[in-house]
Amino acid sequence: MSVDQSSPIEITAFDWVPEFAQGYVRDLRPRWACEEIGLDYAERLVSAIERPDWYYKEQPFGQAPMLKDGGLTYFESGAILLHLGEKDERFLPKSGQARADVVAWLFAALNSIEPYTLEVLLLKFSIDEEWAKLRRPSLVEFVEKRLGRLADALGEKEYLAGRFCIADIAMATVLREAAHTELVSLAPRLRDYVARCLARPAFDRALGAQLAVFERTEKERKRP
Amino acid sequence: MSVDQSSPIEITAFDWVPEFAQGYVRDLRPRWACEEIGLDYAERLVSAIERPDWYYKEQPFGQAPMLKDGGLTYFESGAILLHLGEKDERFLPKSGQARADVVAWLFAALNSIEPYTLEVLLLKFSIDEEWAKLRRPSLVEFVEKRLGRLADALGEKEYLAGRFCIADIAMATVLREAAHTELVSLAPRLRDYVARCLARPAFDRALGAQLAVFERTEKERKRP
Repeated sequence: MSVDQSSPIEITAFDWVPEFAQGYVRDLRPRWACEEIGLDYAERLVSAIERPDWYYKEQPFGQAPMLKDGGLTYFESGAILLHLGEKDERFLPKSGQARADVVAWLFAALNSIEPYTLEVLLLKFSIDEEWAKLRRPSLVEFVEKRLGRLADALGEKEYLAGRFCIADIAMATVLREAAHTELVSLAPRLRDYVARCLARPAFDRALGAQLAVFERTEKERKRP
Repeated sequence: MSVDQSSPIEITAFDWVPEFAQGYVRDLRPRWACEEIGLDYAERLVSAIERPDWYYKEQPFGQAPMLKDGGLTYFESGAILLHLGEKDERFLPKSGQARADVVAWLFAALNSIEPYTLEVLLLKFSIDEEWAKLRRPSLVEFVEKRLGRLADALGEKEYLAGRFCIADIAMATVLREAAHTELVSLAPRLRDYVARCLARPAFDRALGAQLAVFERTEKERKRP
C-alpha cells in the first residue's frame, strides 16, 4: 500500500518536526494500520512549528494525527485505530471476548502505560534541571514495575490479544518510544515483543512514509 | 437503578480505599454509565490494600474497575464505557460523525487530558519533596494551557459532543479529580461543564454506591 492523494482516507500529519521526534509522531499509528489492512491513504500536511490557528478548530489540542474518511473526521490516534480496525476483523474482531480484549488492550496502551512512559521520556528534555534529576529514580522504578506487570500479562503470547491487532500498534509504538532513549529497560519478553511488532513489513512502510515527508520538506527548504 | 447481585452485569470495585481516594476510584465511571442507561449491576469487591495475586491474572495492573457482562470480561474504564455505551445510542451513537466525536472525546479524556492532570494530582503526595516543589510551576502551566484548549473546544456546547455521552463521564471524572485538590484552576467554562455533569442524578447515585461500599467495610471492621 502507499500514499495515494486520490484515496478517500486522508491522514493529517506534520510536514516537519525536529530530529528527535522524527519517526515518532503519532501519525505513525494510522499509517501502520493502513499498511496492515491494505488501505491506500492520502496525506494532508500541517506545520508543527507554526501550527495554524484553524487547525485547533479541527483538532482541539493541535496534535497529529487526524483522519478523514468518507466525509467523517476523527481525532485521537486511539479513536482512529478503532475506526480503521472496524474495516478488517483480523485487527479488530467483530464481537466476543476477542473484541473485548483488543479494545481493553488499546485503552491499556494509551491510559495505563503511555502516560507513565511518556513522563519518563519527557524528563529527558529537563534532565539538566534539578527537579528532573531528583524525580527520575522513583518514576523509573514505578514505570519498570508497571512494565513488569505488562510482561507478565503478555506471558508466552506473541501479541497482546493472541494475534496481531490494533492494540499492538498502540502498545508497540508506546514501548518503542520509551525504549529508544534507554531511560527505561524493557523486560526481555517486552523487548522481544516490540522487536516482533517492528519487524512487520507494514511498520517499515509506515515509518518510511513518515520520514519521507520530513525529507521532502527539508529538500524544499534548501531549494534556493 | 441500583446494585442488584442477580444482574448479569458485574462491576469489580475495591472494598475500601483510604479517605483521599474515596469517591474517586474509577469504578465510578461504569457505575455512572449504568445509572444513565438504566442498568442494574452486581458488585464484586476485591481488596485494594492486600490485592490478591489472582486478581492480576484478570486485570494486568491490579486496577479497578473490571466489568463482566454475559460471560465476557472487560478491563480499562475506557473500554468498559465503550461497551456499556453500545447498549444505548443516546450515550454512544451507532454511526456517523456523532459516533466519531464521542469516541474521539473518550480517548481525548483518557490520553490527552488525564495523563497530565493526574501527574499534577500525584505531585500532591510528594509535595514535601524538593523535586515536586521545583516541578510544579512548569507542569501546572502546561496543564492549564491544555485545559484552556479544552475550554475553547467545548465552546458554548453543553457537553463535549453536544448531548451528554460516555465521553463526558470520562472527562467529567478526570476534571473533577484535577479540581478537587485545587492544584489546577479550571476555566469558568470547564467549571460550569463539570458542575453540569455532576448535577446529573445518575452521577449522584453512582457516587453514593461507591461510598456505601467503603462505609459497609468500615462498619464490618469495627464489629467486635
